[in-house]
Amino acid sequence: MQPNTSPQNVPIADIVYTNCQQGADLFDHADIKPHFWSLCRSFVSEEFMTYCGIASAVTALNSLCVPAPDSPQIYPYKVFTQDNFFTDDVLHFRRPIEVEKHGNTLAQLATMLSLFAVTVDVIKADELSVDECRMLLVGAVGDPSKRVIVDFDRRCLGQKGHGHFSPLAAFHSQEDMFLLMDVARYKLPPCWVRHPLLHSSMVTVDSSSETSRGFLVLTSKE
Amino acid sequence: MQPNTSPQNVPIADIVYTNCQQGADLFDHADIKPHFWSLCRSFVSEEFMTYCGIASAVTALNSLCVPAPDSPQIYPYKVFTQDNFFTDDVLHFRRPIEVEKHGNTLAQLATMLSLFAVTVDVIKADELSVDECRMLLVGAVGDPSKRVIVDFDRRCLGQKGHGHFSPLAAFHSQEDMFLLMDVARYKLPPCWVRHPLLHSSMVTVDSSSETSRGFLVLTSKE
Repeated sequence: MQPNTSPQNVPIADIVYTNCQQGADLFDHADIKPHFWSLCRSFVSEEFMTYCGIASAVTALNSLCVPAPDSPQIYPYKVFTQDNFFTDDVLHFRRPIEVEKHGNTLAQLATMLSLFAVTVDVIKADELSVDECRMLLVGAVGDPSKRVIVDFDRRCLGQKGHGHFSPLAAFHSQEDMFLLMDVARYKLPPCWVRHPLLHSSMVTVDSSSETSRGFLVLTSKE
Repeated sequence: MQPNTSPQNVPIADIVYTNCQQGADLFDHADIKPHFWSLCRSFVSEEFMTYCGIASAVTALNSLCVPAPDSPQIYPYKVFTQDNFFTDDVLHFRRPIEVEKHGNTLAQLATMLSLFAVTVDVIKADELSVDECRMLLVGAVGDPSKRVIVDFDRRCLGQKGHGHFSPLAAFHSQEDMFLLMDVARYKLPPCWVRHPLLHSSMVTVDSSSETSRGFLVLTSKE
């Protein structure tokens, strides 16, 4: 492994946005990216600033082709939206107004997702070493039947804001970087994050749950 | 030029979807793709089956960072949506109910787009040879300050439906193929289309306008 250099031997920072050539080049040479094109097809922006979990869920569920609720505007097709995600089952647990006000914790998002045709594994980052965390993330990012949503603190990445959810779309083994598809698309482009930095951004305490952030692994039931 | 073979020398059809390995590989080896990541970031699904023009416009305008109307839900950020695209100026020309019922012609979409901070060139495909058309499209797809929206007949591509708008995101010179970001995302993934086929799908008559389809080239005014 020879990290920190691009194909042109230019040092690469721990976070590289895809609106620069280096970020684009990293994708072309990334070795683990079976999720990317389905995520690209289903990638949406959070509709409210606190809807990062909902937007990540919708992106991941559509990307896995999980059966979606009715979608009258495009009948007979069906697709998850940030509106129809709130089915009766979801509403029984949590309403849009609560998410608009407070966002979601990792556990809350997991509970909502588990009401659809996916199994949801909740992984707290503080229970894993950097290497264990990488192994789990790479395994999931490389499996076409799984999707990963990370819950991290933006401040660790030098970004404005605090707790945030977004899906991962690829891994570049040589650079040890994950491609993060930021659902606050009006704010930031997708970016590559070096794994130890991503891990440290997940080993932070969510003040709402008073426990560690981490990530969700969704597995299609079909 | 050695068309019709993949890097593994497997023959490539005239249309290749990105949900297969060949489609993904084409992207990694495509030589002209400066628009891709900004389009990926702004790529949206049409909200109604007749909103392909509006969804393509919103994707292209956000991708060019054209100043957007107010967006209360994400204040102070601003982004084009398929709702706020209908500003007073646009509504004076055309209302959502009309687009929902009838969609747009190439000229109507151009008029609406010209009400924002972009210059809009309208190109009718029947006025161009295959080579002239390629030259114009490649020039625009390779220019970071431009975006291309094509107006084509789906039937020529072997797809269900008829007239449709979507942005182009890349060109693969060796294969002579464009990457089409289909905004009916619930229906089809992005796909690579060989240029002569794309040209023939644009040299078709739109029964609403009774003139040839074609494409729009948007240029940022900033």
